[in-house]
Amino acid sequence: MQTTSADNASKRAIVLFAHGARDPLWAEPFELLAQRLRTLRPDCEVRLAFLELMSPSLPDCVAELAAQGMHHITIVPAFMSRGAHLRRDLPQIVEGARTQHPEVEIAVTDALGESPAVLDAMAQWITGSL
Amino acid sequence: MQTTSADNASKRAIVLFAHGARDPLWAEPFELLAQRLRTLRPDCEVRLAFLELMSPSLPDCVAELAAQGMHHITIVPAFMSRGAHLRRDLPQIVEGARTQHPEVEIAVTDALGESPAVLDAMAQWITGSL
Repeated sequence: MQTTSADNASKRAIVLFAHGARDPLWAEPFELLAQRLRTLRPDCEVRLAFLELMSPSLPDCVAELAAQGMHHITIVPAFMSRGAHLRRDLPQIVEGARTQHPEVEIAVTDALGESPAVLDAMAQWITGSL
Repeated sequence: MQTTSADNASKRAIVLFAHGARDPLWAEPFELLAQRLRTLRPDCEVRLAFLELMSPSLPDCVAELAAQGMHHITIVPAFMSRGAHLRRDLPQIVEGARTQHPEVEIAVTDALGESPAVLDAMAQWITGSL
C-alpha cells in the first residue's frame, strides 16, 4: 500500500544504541527501557542496536528502518558516559548511515547517563537502597 | 582521637563502581552523581572506584575506607546492565575485600541501569528529547 507524505512525515523511530555483551541476559534492561518507550510513544518504532557482540548492528538497524520508510531516527546512546565508543566510533557510524540514507534525518542524543534528570533518579535510588 | 562505637557505627560509605576508560572526561557523570549523593547524604563518605584504566581500583578504595574506620560500605555498580564484569569480576573482588576487611560490612546493590525508577527516568528523558 502506498503511503502519503503525511504518513511518511510521522514515521519516527528511536534506536537505543548499547555496547553489547556475550551474555544474552545483558540486554534485558534495554528491552525494559524499549517497552517503556513503546508505551509512552506508541507512534514511534523503538529498536535496540549494538556496537558489538549482539545484533543488529547500528548500520543494519538504520538500514532496516530506512527500508520501512522511517524519515526521522533518533539514536540514544545507552551508555553511562562518553568514552571512545561514543566520541570516535558512533560519529563514524552515523556519518556512514547518513551517507547511505540521505532521505532519513538522523539525530543523536547525549548519553543516557549524562542526563541531569537521570542522574537525579540514580541518586535518589541509591539513597533509597542504603 | 579515639572514636566511640556509636561514632563507628555511623561511619558509612557509598562507592560508585564504574568500568573506567582512557579518556579522563569519561568520569564526569560519575563525579556529578557523587556530588548529588554528598548533598543527599552528607553523613556518608562517597567515592568512585574503577574496574580498569582509572584509579583507584575497588580493592584500594575499600582498603582506604576501612583504614578510615568505615563500618558499612555500599558498592553501587554504575553500569547500564550486568555482564561478565558484574556477574564474574565484581563478586570475586568483593569476596577478596570481605576477607581482607572482616570488620567492614560490604553490601552490593543492583546495577544502576537495572533500577525501575532509573529506567522510568531514562524513558521520560528520551521522550522529552525527541
